[in-house]
Amino acid sequence: MEIITLNRKVLEKNDETAQSIREMLRTRKILTINMMSAPGSGKTSIIEKTVENMSGSSVAVITGDVQTANDAERLTACGIPVVQLITCGACHLDSTMIQGALDKLDLTAVDVLFIENIGNLICPAGFDLGENLRVIVLSTAEGTDKPLKYPAMFEKADAVVINKIDLLENVNFSLEEAKRFIHELNPAVPVFEISCTSEKGIEQWCAWLLKNLKKYPVLA
Amino acid sequence: MEIITLNRKVLEKNDETAQSIREMLRTRKILTINMMSAPGSGKTSIIEKTVENMSGSSVAVITGDVQTANDAERLTACGIPVVQLITCGACHLDSTMIQGALDKLDLTAVDVLFIENIGNLICPAGFDLGENLRVIVLSTAEGTDKPLKYPAMFEKADAVVINKIDLLENVNFSLEEAKRFIHELNPAVPVFEISCTSEKGIEQWCAWLLKNLKKYPVLA
Repeated sequence: MEIITLNRKVLEKNDETAQSIREMLRTRKILTINMMSAPGSGKTSIIEKTVENMSGSSVAVITGDVQTANDAERLTACGIPVVQLITCGACHLDSTMIQGALDKLDLTAVDVLFIENIGNLICPAGFDLGENLRVIVLSTAEGTDKPLKYPAMFEKADAVVINKIDLLENVNFSLEEAKRFIHELNPAVPVFEISCTSEKGIEQWCAWLLKNLKKYPVLA
Repeated sequence: MEIITLNRKVLEKNDETAQSIREMLRTRKILTINMMSAPGSGKTSIIEKTVENMSGSSVAVITGDVQTANDAERLTACGIPVVQLITCGACHLDSTMIQGALDKLDLTAVDVLFIENIGNLICPAGFDLGENLRVIVLSTAEGTDKPLKYPAMFEKADAVVINKIDLLENVNFSLEEAKRFIHELNPAVPVFEISCTSEKGIEQWCAWLLKNLKKYPVLA
């Protein structure tokens, strides 16, 4: 009971900061995407491929990890402006961390801001970061039942990306069943089937982002 | 600051309960293994294969999930006594939950108790469940850098299982590098390379469990 009370206070403060971040980003016309997934689902690779395929838009990234700046180094090598948040054990990003990262980013020419959350299918679900869109990444190697096991993530998603479809012949994963589970939780959510290795599906995913970028700031 | 204080209190209470669970299990000569991993690394499959290959020992399982009893159903279908804990959103198991599950298990003939933790590479690391051994499972599909990104899990492991080695030709994963990262964090930890599909490495993993079962209760 004590914990629940504290969590409520923490969440209220988080939501206030998130709302002020969202308003600031709206004023600057920056579309912001909170990407969440289990560890190793391929969030960084998807952002790399997205930047390659959206050359008309300027992308920046805030990436969170418990330890290491590996993801930031990969993204910087692709010429992407990036701030790495190292949480030293914390299991999710919160809006105060995002506020701190935004202070370090030059937002002048940015059209799209990706927030690459900590690899965790549970805790990040409860924390609004001021984003416009929540995207959940699921890798085919993780198994078909993940939407059922981690429903909070999938219920609130604006899009689901099923990554590593190049592994479909080698893993026990049913695309049809996974999509059925996802749509039972979130009936209208778009699901993109992609591979960062073969680049299959990347075009459709980027087209969806561009469509959202065009209708923003009406969106939020 | 407030949060840290509360976490300390929670952890102290957790550790007390864990200690009393460990003593009870020691009296009954039950070797207890806390299995932790990211979502979809294959914990349930490993337990299934372990039971098949350790016919001389009696195994029971406490399995934790945020939602669904899928894992318990799979294990029950293999004839394994199992209690499913559904945490309804909580991101890790704690010792009070284990105490509740133990009250529902007939421990009379049990030699080995697996606790299959929530799929999460961060939060479960801080919670002693009264186990004797902590085993971390890493799937080759998750990428080589996971030990560096989630060091708390790997630092405290008594063994690391690298699962899905049948996918090595299809994923970007280096066994040598992964083992180097693991041993930088935890120099003497045994690492088992296995596949539940081809059954490669299962024998060595089971031999290690049997060795630990024989030296228990000296172990804890």
